[in-house]
Amino acid sequence: MSAAQGAPETEFRDRTRRAQTMMHEAGLGALLLTTEPEVRYFSGFLTRFWESPTRPWFLVVPAEGAPVAVIPAIGAHLMGRTWIADIRTWRSPDYADDGVSLLAETLTECAGPNGAVGVPSGGETHLRMPLSDWADLCRRLPGLRLTDDGGLTRSLRMTKSPGEIGQIRESCAVADRAFARVPEIAWGGVPLSEVFRGFQILCLEEGADWVPYLAGASAPGGYADVISPADARPLAAGDVLMLDTGLVRAGYFCDFDRNFSVGPPDRRVSDAHARLIEATEAGFAAARPGVTASDLFHVMDRIVTGGAGGSEAGRLGHGLGMQLTEPPSLIPADQTELRPGMVLTLEPGVEVEPGRMIVHEENIVIRDGGAEWLSTPSGAEIAVLDA
Amino acid sequence: MSAAQGAPETEFRDRTRRAQTMMHEAGLGALLLTTEPEVRYFSGFLTRFWESPTRPWFLVVPAEGAPVAVIPAIGAHLMGRTWIADIRTWRSPDYADDGVSLLAETLTECAGPNGAVGVPSGGETHLRMPLSDWADLCRRLPGLRLTDDGGLTRSLRMTKSPGEIGQIRESCAVADRAFARVPEIAWGGVPLSEVFRGFQILCLEEGADWVPYLAGASAPGGYADVISPADARPLAAGDVLMLDTGLVRAGYFCDFDRNFSVGPPDRRVSDAHARLIEATEAGFAAARPGVTASDLFHVMDRIVTGGAGGSEAGRLGHGLGMQLTEPPSLIPADQTELRPGMVLTLEPGVEVEPGRMIVHEENIVIRDGGAEWLSTPSGAEIAVLDA
Repeated sequence: MSAAQGAPETEFRDRTRRAQTMMHEAGLGALLLTTEPEVRYFSGFLTRFWESPTRPWFLVVPAEGAPVAVIPAIGAHLMGRTWIADIRTWRSPDYADDGVSLLAETLTECAGPNGAVGVPSGGETHLRMPLSDWADLCRRLPGLRLTDDGGLTRSLRMTKSPGEIGQIRESCAVADRAFARVPEIAWGGVPLSEVFRGFQILCLEEGADWVPYLAGASAPGGYADVISPADARPLAAGDVLMLDTGLVRAGYFCDFDRNFSVGPPDRRVSDAHARLIEATEAGFAAARPGVTASDLFHVMDRIVTGGAGGSEAGRLGHGLGMQLTEPPSLIPADQTELRPGMVLTLEPGVEVEPGRMIVHEENIVIRDGGAEWLSTPSGAEIAVLDA
Repeated sequence: MSAAQGAPETEFRDRTRRAQTMMHEAGLGALLLTTEPEVRYFSGFLTRFWESPTRPWFLVVPAEGAPVAVIPAIGAHLMGRTWIADIRTWRSPDYADDGVSLLAETLTECAGPNGAVGVPSGGETHLRMPLSDWADLCRRLPGLRLTDDGGLTRSLRMTKSPGEIGQIRESCAVADRAFARVPEIAWGGVPLSEVFRGFQILCLEEGADWVPYLAGASAPGGYADVISPADARPLAAGDVLMLDTGLVRAGYFCDFDRNFSVGPPDRRVSDAHARLIEATEAGFAAARPGVTASDLFHVMDRIVTGGAGGSEAGRLGHGLGMQLTEPPSLIPADQTELRPGMVLTLEPGVEVEPGRMIVHEENIVIRDGGAEWLSTPSGAEIAVLDA
């Protein structure tokens, strides 16, 4: 297994073959992929260089055979360490033609001049190339039909392989160990921004390759927000501190949080935390093949709101894997049937009082007989930090 | 100044006013922005939650008055801490209508039913919303013209304010201190993956809020690649170790690297490093208002290749700020005239032998009289680590 791949070549061949079966059924002559997880899913191309928005990257999956990479020359060496053999490059950035003509040729070759090319276009996707280049590509290929992939890529990626599940489990274990060490870095008086820095250091010390995501808050009796970066306010007695991390190891995320009471919790906080754990355990118990994402939502929503049907956060969990958040969404409208190998977060929240909430999150994988924890589940009692 | 903003409100008002002057000249009734830096540039909305690809976020800049946020409800509280007062939300994800109708109404209100809406569409941009929702939006607004913004957003962002330059300088200082401590974490026998973890820890200890980007390599006499993640190979005598970081503090990046010789460098390595410093200093000396990005390229290219006109990496530096890489590009084709306030990287590379290169990078800001260093420039001698 090459370091650049993160999985054995057989797995990439298998993903490609399954995509091709679905492409055949959908009448697609090729798939065009432009985002980091889509390109990596079929190639194993793992780099943090996507942080630079300058250059577009393309992977074309033909109806038969291995994918073709159409990429900036700066990536040729790394792509050459994956299983992809057909690597076509240009010197990017090229203001006259930033890969568009090379991509147009490749699509025509793979799908035929009058074929159909699937492009992931539905929810949670985007096209990572300039809109003007996209328009130019469409103009250059008047016979070719550039169309939605019908959710094919989404559907394939939603079920994880044993290797992928193992990687997510390892990422969860890293976060488990980091969360267990929070008392080393957080107590009354420490600014939240220092807690955030310290927690990221713990994640790295425990084995994270990098820490793409950390959000959280610390506020009296609950917080108003779960997506804010840290400010410099010191932790204070009576605060609930929440840390929610998406760290990466070998290209796979975990995504879960932990709550801490700074000093002894008041009754409303400890009750709220216990209710969250009850909701999470109910979600876990209900999670099995054939149940829907919507069912899981309702099981937890009954416990955290009495069945109000949702909150402003919009969902009570989601898929997880090569991205921090992936389909499905645990919302009333999501009728996705759970299948063995799906990795999910369970993420119920309760409003302690208007404008003050607590949110809890765990990671699970769906197995034949039911669910299995990937994160080590919290007990009902909220952890307490020195005030 | 609010923690969510990162700049005083007057600065956001000023950016908006300057955009509106350019919009007026271009005949645009509104701007539609969908990506993290575009939204943050006009609003101050700073969150790591963009790591989740699930939800689209929109900011509409009208021809007059303050921008309007059209965002998922989960972001309302944080957006409420910025200067944006008109915040329109929906519960996302909504599979029936993920903000599209709310956005369509807002665009019609801001630009009029037959107005023109500028959308950043040129090089280095993308549209961060599903392609199917974009098509739906265009269908709902038959009178409205959704068109390129003519590079307006790019042009505005390219010149940094004194506040932005100060933030980038602070990020550079954090990286300077972390690079100075590399001998604490790297020597012969330490696996590169541990060096990467240790270096990210140093960045956090020295004051990074987070470390979105780290790439590098360690290989005998130079490396084949500058975008790879770390593997577990231990550093060995004769290696050149390169670490290239884009860390963030208060929402602004630095982007520069340092090279280290593991044990004493051989002559070719020390010569190559000295040549890189010579090229960087020549770039620095040439960088002043009125000179073009292309000119800077040629000044450095003459020294590193004798004037070959470039390499597979495609450029010898670029803009920097809210993103790791921003326009302009130091390439022959980029005729952007340097202006005071532009922040650039100078990033020459030399090929030591086929497949073995060394790349050096510094960060500078253009001032009236010339350039000023933001990173503390390296000397000609390559730093040496214990073998």
